Amino acid sequence: MKSFKIALAQFSPHVGNIEINVQRMIEQTNEAKKQHADIIVFPELSMIGYPAEDLLLRPSLTKRSELAFKQLSKVKDIVMVFGFVNQTEDGQRYNSAAVMKDGQILGIYNKQNLPNYSVFDEKRYFSEGHQHLVFEYLGHKFGVLICEDTWSLKTVQQLSQLNVETVLVLNSSPYEVGKPQHRVITMSELAKQLNINLVYVNQVGGQDDLIFDGTSFVVNQDGSIALQAPSYKEMVFFAEYDVTQKAFKIGEVTPALDTMAEIYQGLVMATRDYINRSGFPGVILGLSGGIDSALTLAIAVDAIGPEKVQAVMMPYTYTAQISVEDAAEQAKNLGVVFGIAEINNIVNSFMQTLFPFFGNSPADTTEENLQARSRGTLLMGLSNKFGNLVLSTGNKSELAVGYCTLYGDMVGGYAVLKDVYKTIVFELAKYRNSISETPVIPERVITRPPSAELRPDQKDQDSLPAYEVLDAILYAYIEEDLSQDDIIAKGFEKDVVEKVIQLVDRNEYKRRQGAIGPRITSRAFSRERRYPIVNGWKPGV
Amino acid sequence: MKSFKIALAQFSPHVGNIEINVQRMIEQTNEAKKQHADIIVFPELSMIGYPAEDLLLRPSLTKRSELAFKQLSKVKDIVMVFGFVNQTEDGQRYNSAAVMKDGQILGIYNKQNLPNYSVFDEKRYFSEGHQHLVFEYLGHKFGVLICEDTWSLKTVQQLSQLNVETVLVLNSSPYEVGKPQHRVITMSELAKQLNINLVYVNQVGGQDDLIFDGTSFVVNQDGSIALQAPSYKEMVFFAEYDVTQKAFKIGEVTPALDTMAEIYQGLVMATRDYINRSGFPGVILGLSGGIDSALTLAIAVDAIGPEKVQAVMMPYTYTAQISVEDAAEQAKNLGVVFGIAEINNIVNSFMQTLFPFFGNSPADTTEENLQARSRGTLLMGLSNKFGNLVLSTGNKSELAVGYCTLYGDMVGGYAVLKDVYKTIVFELAKYRNSISETPVIPERVITRPPSAELRPDQKDQDSLPAYEVLDAILYAYIEEDLSQDDIIAKGFEKDVVEKVIQLVDRNEYKRRQGAIGPRITSRAFSRERRYPIVNGWKPGV
Repeated sequence: MKSFKIALAQFSPHVGNIEINVQRMIEQTNEAKKQHADIIVFPELSMIGYPAEDLLLRPSLTKRSELAFKQLSKVKDIVMVFGFVNQTEDGQRYNSAAVMKDGQILGIYNKQNLPNYSVFDEKRYFSEGHQHLVFEYLGHKFGVLICEDTWSLKTVQQLSQLNVETVLVLNSSPYEVGKPQHRVITMSELAKQLNINLVYVNQVGGQDDLIFDGTSFVVNQDGSIALQAPSYKEMVFFAEYDVTQKAFKIGEVTPALDTMAEIYQGLVMATRDYINRSGFPGVILGLSGGIDSALTLAIAVDAIGPEKVQAVMMPYTYTAQISVEDAAEQAKNLGVVFGIAEINNIVNSFMQTLFPFFGNSPADTTEENLQARSRGTLLMGLSNKFGNLVLSTGNKSELAVGYCTLYGDMVGGYAVLKDVYKTIVFELAKYRNSISETPVIPERVITRPPSAELRPDQKDQDSLPAYEVLDAILYAYIEEDLSQDDIIAKGFEKDVVEKVIQLVDRNEYKRRQGAIGPRITSRAFSRERRYPIVNGWKPGV
Repeated sequence: MKSFKIALAQFSPHVGNIEINVQRMIEQTNEAKKQHADIIVFPELSMIGYPAEDLLLRPSLTKRSELAFKQLSKVKDIVMVFGFVNQTEDGQRYNSAAVMKDGQILGIYNKQNLPNYSVFDEKRYFSEGHQHLVFEYLGHKFGVLICEDTWSLKTVQQLSQLNVETVLVLNSSPYEVGKPQHRVITMSELAKQLNINLVYVNQVGGQDDLIFDGTSFVVNQDGSIALQAPSYKEMVFFAEYDVTQKAFKIGEVTPALDTMAEIYQGLVMATRDYINRSGFPGVILGLSGGIDSALTLAIAVDAIGPEKVQAVMMPYTYTAQISVEDAAEQAKNLGVVFGIAEINNIVNSFMQTLFPFFGNSPADTTEENLQARSRGTLLMGLSNKFGNLVLSTGNKSELAVGYCTLYGDMVGGYAVLKDVYKTIVFELAKYRNSISETPVIPERVITRPPSAELRPDQKDQDSLPAYEVLDAILYAYIEEDLSQDDIIAKGFEKDVVEKVIQLVDRNEYKRRQGAIGPRITSRAFSRERRYPIVNGWKPGV
């Protein structure tokens, strides 16, 4: 028995790119060896990245995994524990962890608890494992678990009863608000309850709509936190086990972020990863003088730097002069390329072409949508010509009730605020201003009453309840799954609740055609809220 | 023991609308009683419709189901076998069948085999049942199974060993090409093998991207087909059991449709159901003079009648005169409202507005996309003003390789040909012309070389391989999951295969924002092909 050092590889895989991932795993392992680590632990399914979705069904995965194992088997003098897809000869496919040293496989563990709810579809891809893996190394008894396994008390209990001292946990646990700290607290209690140490290594990075925050940690059997890695940072961290103390030494324990910092940094990382991994040279967005596009711009600049960000203001008759001023000011503050493209001529040409069809029918949302779609087409034109990704700027409250124009302001490849309610948009804007010497978002953009500026003197609040009320109703209906009656019983006005719910239900088709965007809540409009478009459910009861 | 009559309710539920579904189930039951049926069998989950997706997670489902049971319990003098969501007191949720007579529940069966592959996500919602249900009625021994159960030989064998004579099978089995006949043949063999009669009742109707063809049937234990209901028709069918013959009497056996008829009629039904159940008064589509929009128009007219269909031709400089002529001719033949809206002024206004940004950069796809997006915006304007649903007209080959413009020709709520390869588009057009006295699609539309008409003298085949080759490669890659190497090994040119696969992989983001459309293959671009957008998978191996 001796003291030893474990490297926690808070790894950001490129999903599907096994070749690159393995190469980078080897680099991180070499780094760990330089620090004299005895064991390096990677996240769940580190080899292919999480979630690889239907790539897992491609037959050639077998061949690729074999090549990857060959590469990894060249690594010497350290135990590697990594995640891979285990395709066995009887045709089963498992979500597995391998323990490998000097090219020898010391053990394979197949995940026993497969989540198939919320954003997870693991039963679509994997069979359940039924055996624990325990291995002894350096006189210490280790167990291995994978993510969901640790949330099954039964599974962890069974493993702890095999006299395991330290459990290595491989995770790809997606972010949602408060989740990083929730994991640490829950696992610390579990460690104490079952008298085991837990080395919890989590994937980091953005993957489509999912944010992986990392925030890996080590907790001792007395519940003490020996290590807590920062969120959103790809890096190898180290934990030293002191054999005389029979515990991991208390090392770097990064304090949890405040909620707004946690969300903001997550959005920044997710946006950066989406842009870079999709191979775009930069981004472009429509800057309206409103708060949503202002916040999106700030996030984009923080993600990839101002030189890769282009903002375009596209005013029309109903655009207030202060909107143009504020947009220009923000663009200047942030140092991004800024252009102005008036849309009056375009809208007029649409109106003239449609006149034979419309005749003198009164103006309605049709005309408002023409403005939004003229802007969308301009942005896409600039994107097509210069190759920048269009960032969509709508927020969750708007998307929920359909206060957005399909093929208009909804255009874009990535919707940064897709899962951010309007009330949180305000908080995030204030947070971002609070962390730099001069505000990056002009104060007036935050304090002005929100308006889509699609009609003269239009205000959002003319046709929607106050955002505090709207967001509370939306939260109850979407996140909490409450019925209309339940929400009214909470004290909201009946008419308002009915209207809001009707809007949410009717706008499923719009959301289905919207860009993906990073998930920060427990019920984003994405793979975890699967509603039929043709849907006769009556919200009443 | 006596002879008896079973009613097969080939039922088309409105997903989520439990109240309406129950009311219509009662109507069909009354109809069955008039025909002196002893038992009526409904499809799987008939009460809420299939698939209800995350509506199944709404807490108020319990209350609604209770009310529905109350309604159904008023039905007298017939045994009802129907599908419902069984939420038990221990918090489990099952996909279940109830056997009810005169308000008494004679038995409940919980589905044992839950599909969680392809389009199915049943493990997201349901727990597995572990018990068979057998009931005796009129001196005859019945068993009950639900859909996937019959594809598990083990499950059916276990049931048959309980001396069951006839198994009532409740299904919501989605359509794909050839599936209707495949079910009958497989079940007929199974019946023979296990010496049981099978009464197979399938849901009918379109639900979002899924087509349910119905095609319910009865097979005897000697493998003979006693009843085969027509596909795509909502109706109650009857099968009489002759106790002296110990078999169901051979009744109406509708011959299987030819492939093109099967596909065409499926698309018509799906389109009709989408339009009607979404509550649209009619549809509008862009008619280009090409074959895709011509076929879409024919399907729309067959679905809801010409008076509810509006077609718009939107020519530009590159539009051939014969395109305008052919579009006008088809519109006239079919008797739909037809309008022409030139887009030159709109495109020019976009170009003028973009000139300060573009300068003298050479024309590329950007300018082509401006044409497509001008058309898309016009269609959406007409849709917004008059309330008609925009039908999108792209085919599967185009969508696969991204030869379509996001927010341009891709606009719309329903993409009728989304899962139809271009080579099948041609076949369907010929088929449709073959069944009416005068062709509804002008001959020249079918024989002209396909062109998007976005550049002078452009032909699809300038930049894509011949559609026969393209579709064969796409089929191998998408439906068969073959790797690039495998496909080249089949004899296709290396460069062509590489280019096609690269296009498929790169255009996932476009497809993700496309409208839903009816599924006819075993791998539609929908819930059954879940690919990450950020995806580093290399197609090579």
